[in-house]
Amino acid sequence: MEGRIEKITVVGAGSWGTALAMVLADNGHEVRLWGHNPKQIDDINEYHTNEKYLPGISLPKGIIGFKSLEDALTNIETIVIAVPTKAIREVLGKIKEFQKEPLTIVHVSKGIEPDTLLRISEMIEEEMPDNLLRNVVVLSGPSHAEEVSRRNITTVTVSSKNIEAAERIQDLFINSYFRVYTNNDVIGVEIGGALKNIIALAAGITDGLGYGDNAKAALMTRGLAEIARLGTKMGASPLTFSGLTGIGDLIVTCTSVHSRNWRAGNMLGKGYRLQEVLDSMGMVVEGVRTTKAAHQLAERYQVKMPITQALYNVLFKDANPKDEVDSLMSRVKTHEMEDLANVLSTDSIE
Amino acid sequence: MEGRIEKITVVGAGSWGTALAMVLADNGHEVRLWGHNPKQIDDINEYHTNEKYLPGISLPKGIIGFKSLEDALTNIETIVIAVPTKAIREVLGKIKEFQKEPLTIVHVSKGIEPDTLLRISEMIEEEMPDNLLRNVVVLSGPSHAEEVSRRNITTVTVSSKNIEAAERIQDLFINSYFRVYTNNDVIGVEIGGALKNIIALAAGITDGLGYGDNAKAALMTRGLAEIARLGTKMGASPLTFSGLTGIGDLIVTCTSVHSRNWRAGNMLGKGYRLQEVLDSMGMVVEGVRTTKAAHQLAERYQVKMPITQALYNVLFKDANPKDEVDSLMSRVKTHEMEDLANVLSTDSIE
Repeated sequence: MEGRIEKITVVGAGSWGTALAMVLADNGHEVRLWGHNPKQIDDINEYHTNEKYLPGISLPKGIIGFKSLEDALTNIETIVIAVPTKAIREVLGKIKEFQKEPLTIVHVSKGIEPDTLLRISEMIEEEMPDNLLRNVVVLSGPSHAEEVSRRNITTVTVSSKNIEAAERIQDLFINSYFRVYTNNDVIGVEIGGALKNIIALAAGITDGLGYGDNAKAALMTRGLAEIARLGTKMGASPLTFSGLTGIGDLIVTCTSVHSRNWRAGNMLGKGYRLQEVLDSMGMVVEGVRTTKAAHQLAERYQVKMPITQALYNVLFKDANPKDEVDSLMSRVKTHEMEDLANVLSTDSIE
Repeated sequence: MEGRIEKITVVGAGSWGTALAMVLADNGHEVRLWGHNPKQIDDINEYHTNEKYLPGISLPKGIIGFKSLEDALTNIETIVIAVPTKAIREVLGKIKEFQKEPLTIVHVSKGIEPDTLLRISEMIEEEMPDNLLRNVVVLSGPSHAEEVSRRNITTVTVSSKNIEAAERIQDLFINSYFRVYTNNDVIGVEIGGALKNIIALAAGITDGLGYGDNAKAALMTRGLAEIARLGTKMGASPLTFSGLTGIGDLIVTCTSVHSRNWRAGNMLGKGYRLQEVLDSMGMVVEGVRTTKAAHQLAERYQVKMPITQALYNVLFKDANPKDEVDSLMSRVKTHEMEDLANVLSTDSIE
């Protein structure tokens, strides 16, 4: 099933970029891993470790660290962009400066740009000139980097407007522990991946408040319905939200100790202030920014998103987490299917 | 929102029957709780405790324990049956002996009868003469009894062929911590509740084998698709599987330490034999029996259910759990939507 050997550059040496570099190196590819921290790159090349992001993991020797993005991209056709969403335009701006040949860009970030309300593939299409962009592919799914780096069995989905491009990326990544599926619903894959971080923050809050597993399961169920309602209005297939990048990723992000968004929510539920939480995390919490964007999307598409609204109130309006959760849970609504049916309806909601 | 005060009998004083009796008593109803163990009933009446099933919990004084089922049912119109599925026919057989007036029967068990392949509401309709049965209502959803007994916020769904009957039961149970929704898709509600126990057993196995959260999320995602494939063939609405009794109950059962089915699977994954596991649990593990029934249903409806098949092999064919999980995870299939689309299709699968 594996395809030909390639030179591939991974831009971003955080936990996910490094774990994906490991998968590619395990498959025999020549992997260049670029990061902005020179000390980190030295460690990758000298000790084959990335202690800050993947402590205790030995990296394959097929991964070469690069300090210069220009060097890392010389004679490259395929790059994987694994940086926080708010750094993507900056990275693309640098790539444009020296890149001459068209690239296939695989992005693995999960977010929506506030204000422009663009999905990440749309940001890439907007930022890159046509002559430098062959294809954009998104890779998403229930995949904690820590587990991938330990070669635990993991399933992900790749999606692109050009299904052949997605299949080529599938071939690069697939192996015995990293199972890659294709899906041609780019909108659904990107929206599911981005918005589940909102629900994970909210699930962390209910856990932090001590509400228990019954309440959390209800929150996740409604969260998925809310994501699917917005996503289908934006043009996604409702089925995608029942797949790996929808419910699969939602489950892993809301229930795993590895999830940053859940951990951040958990601290909020325990009474910490947003700034304290962000300061203590040391990594980007994508869900905070995504909540802002989703709140704007709900308005633009006239979709009711009560969980997003509640979280927005907590994050940006200084609302009390317990009051918001209690109000969510006591919403007066008695017929379950009304809520679910709206997922598939194109009418206005409720 | 609360309706009139009633006399209600709960048949079965296990953890779920007792927790539901507590909800009804909290709402002011006169609750008779019948159990087959006289010592347990004495404790309920003398000390207001049910230490075996809900340790550390004080029961409301509105719950009266009964040793005689006939006494418990005198002048009663509504009963809640909360016994393991394999005991349901026996209980109904006793009720028929002395009952004169028609009953609304609420069942809260989650299973499918092997061989007859009847859902529980169908078993009740078959067993009870028409003149003794007014309505059957199923109550299901993500609801660990332990959390309900601590009055943690919980959401459930009630469903009946007669939606007014479901609404009447909704009125009996609903309160500030126990949120009750209606859904008129009885088949979907019963199938989702029953079959999630199979996926929980399988999730326990992958956890017991040490596969991690990524693999478990993939298993749960595919598990839901497999349940929905069968359910829709049986006449359920696919939407129900995205609701509280589908994905909601699946999440809580696969990820919570309270889940017996998960715990049983976990022991299987760690290498214990089925009989050792069952002996050590001390409570019924519904998923074992349901796996047998679902395996038969898959054959009858010609639906592919790979997780059910794998678990069947482990439980009844002495297959090695690790071999079965590895074979599940390495299935050759590359386009995700093919699998999901089958949920909504009425064609044969794959």
